[in-house]
Amino acid sequence: MPETRPLAISMGEPAGVGPDIVLTLYARRAELGLPAFGIYAPLGFIQKRAERLGLKFPIKNVLADYVGEAFDETLPVVSLEGAVADNPGVPVPDTAQVVIDSIDQAFADVRSEKMRALVTAPIHKSVLYGAGFTHQGHTDYLAELCGDGTKHPHGVMMLVGAGMRVVPVTVHVPLQEVPWRLTTNLIVTTCRTLHEALKRQFVIDEPRIALTGLNPHAGESGSMGEQERTVIQPAIVALAEDGIAVEGPIPADTAFVPDIRKNYDAIVAMYHDQALIPIKTLAFEEAVNVTLGLPIVRTSPDHGTALALAGTGKASTRSFENAVRLADELSRV
Amino acid sequence: MPETRPLAISMGEPAGVGPDIVLTLYARRAELGLPAFGIYAPLGFIQKRAERLGLKFPIKNVLADYVGEAFDETLPVVSLEGAVADNPGVPVPDTAQVVIDSIDQAFADVRSEKMRALVTAPIHKSVLYGAGFTHQGHTDYLAELCGDGTKHPHGVMMLVGAGMRVVPVTVHVPLQEVPWRLTTNLIVTTCRTLHEALKRQFVIDEPRIALTGLNPHAGESGSMGEQERTVIQPAIVALAEDGIAVEGPIPADTAFVPDIRKNYDAIVAMYHDQALIPIKTLAFEEAVNVTLGLPIVRTSPDHGTALALAGTGKASTRSFENAVRLADELSRV
Repeated sequence: MPETRPLAISMGEPAGVGPDIVLTLYARRAELGLPAFGIYAPLGFIQKRAERLGLKFPIKNVLADYVGEAFDETLPVVSLEGAVADNPGVPVPDTAQVVIDSIDQAFADVRSEKMRALVTAPIHKSVLYGAGFTHQGHTDYLAELCGDGTKHPHGVMMLVGAGMRVVPVTVHVPLQEVPWRLTTNLIVTTCRTLHEALKRQFVIDEPRIALTGLNPHAGESGSMGEQERTVIQPAIVALAEDGIAVEGPIPADTAFVPDIRKNYDAIVAMYHDQALIPIKTLAFEEAVNVTLGLPIVRTSPDHGTALALAGTGKASTRSFENAVRLADELSRV
Repeated sequence: MPETRPLAISMGEPAGVGPDIVLTLYARRAELGLPAFGIYAPLGFIQKRAERLGLKFPIKNVLADYVGEAFDETLPVVSLEGAVADNPGVPVPDTAQVVIDSIDQAFADVRSEKMRALVTAPIHKSVLYGAGFTHQGHTDYLAELCGDGTKHPHGVMMLVGAGMRVVPVTVHVPLQEVPWRLTTNLIVTTCRTLHEALKRQFVIDEPRIALTGLNPHAGESGSMGEQERTVIQPAIVALAEDGIAVEGPIPADTAFVPDIRKNYDAIVAMYHDQALIPIKTLAFEEAVNVTLGLPIVRTSPDHGTALALAGTGKASTRSFENAVRLADELSRV
């Protein structure tokens, strides 16, 4: 397939800033040099949001196959069933199905190679949970969509920004469950997926990967926790047997110091905040979330729905712009 | 007492960079405009380390009472019993007692108001543990020294750097114990001590304090952990009843973003890495550790013994310099 196929963008929470940012990026597409994309959403909703933001350009229904050629003239909307009111800042339960449909349809068109890669706008999880959505987030939902109903690939979340790539081994779990969910097998699986993606998608011949410790000071030789010796070190040994060199465990509070992080193509952290604190602290408005280990390329901005900014035109577009660029880059390889 | 009383510096691990940095700071005292200080250590050891580093200035035994007036002419060493060999990078068990004596004697001279404040050089805990030291670190050891044998104040660790002040509620405990050690009472006690210190020592009339959540996304309304509702919110309520306004819980991965952290005089994190990752990532070579809640002022550099750099003269002196400056500043109030 030619690399001119467009990107598919799911609409995300309609009361949030996702639709605003997609509209703004379309308005600035030439200036920013963005690749063609289409948004999966009800047409009327997108038109009303554009009007609210004072954006004047054609917005039309376009079939997925024609998004690429329509993109210069109109914002292509791959239309979904269902009416969605333009109520910025006010999430309502009855939009849940169209939000999920948007992900499903955009995913399906990427999976069938009509579209080149998927960029997902932020969702408001509690709205989706109310409609019976049971997944922790896009990453595991998309992994399940990539499966055959009985088994599916393990999606790995990576954050990219501030010159760093960071991967949390455990993600959206309560802190007290982290020590029990963190297994040697999960670390090995995550690092294998990461290593493969760094080589294949990021085109790094010999990826340099570091692991953080779980405990303060990486357990300080066992005096502040055991998992460095019982869980993490065995993973490093198992990976070495596969020919995958990873270093660590490095105390998490030094792993992200400039002189340390510069030595690695990616740092694997043991849990959510260990990975997200450094990248958001350094690169909040620029960081991008990318899912590794799936048969499709998927990125998203590293921010939430920012309900208070929806409809104002004040939301920063940088993270979403970077998500579009990274989806473009990774799907050209 | 006049504010010209000197600062007391404990020697820390003799195989580490602490003694090197104290020597270097003395050599640059005029250029940096540093206040008078004395180091508590065996004289011969300090003289040999200076010789190794090629530093040529007088180094003499001085009684604590005369450190201030001697400082212009000589590095004052408040001498301790015990021979310590100059073996950079090689910690040995038989130095443990002199390292502890250094803390004890420097502390005693600050407590008795001969000296104005205490700055501690980094220790190598496993050496001290081998000698029967049972404390997690300086903070709790000094708190115990401030007690009467049956009860003692609760020392609170604060990190200062990159324009931030950060306090971890739990500190040197294995991650799996954090959820059990984190209690409403501990949060309240920590915040009271912090609030008092911000007002009295940092001279902030109405301190603005934020708390992080324990879980990812601060528990996301209970879907990713309970402690925000069961432990942290009740602490906020109890503090409000005392007239201490604290905000939160804020997701830890957004609390340290520039637009958020600028709103607070201090951010209270629930555990070690939540607090230490952002400050070390942003200000590794500049951050200072200060102990709140004790009847003395105590600071230290926010780095370890850096054994590999000991004796080379290559260790950064910035954090230690800032620790000296902060001890000076806080003990003038």
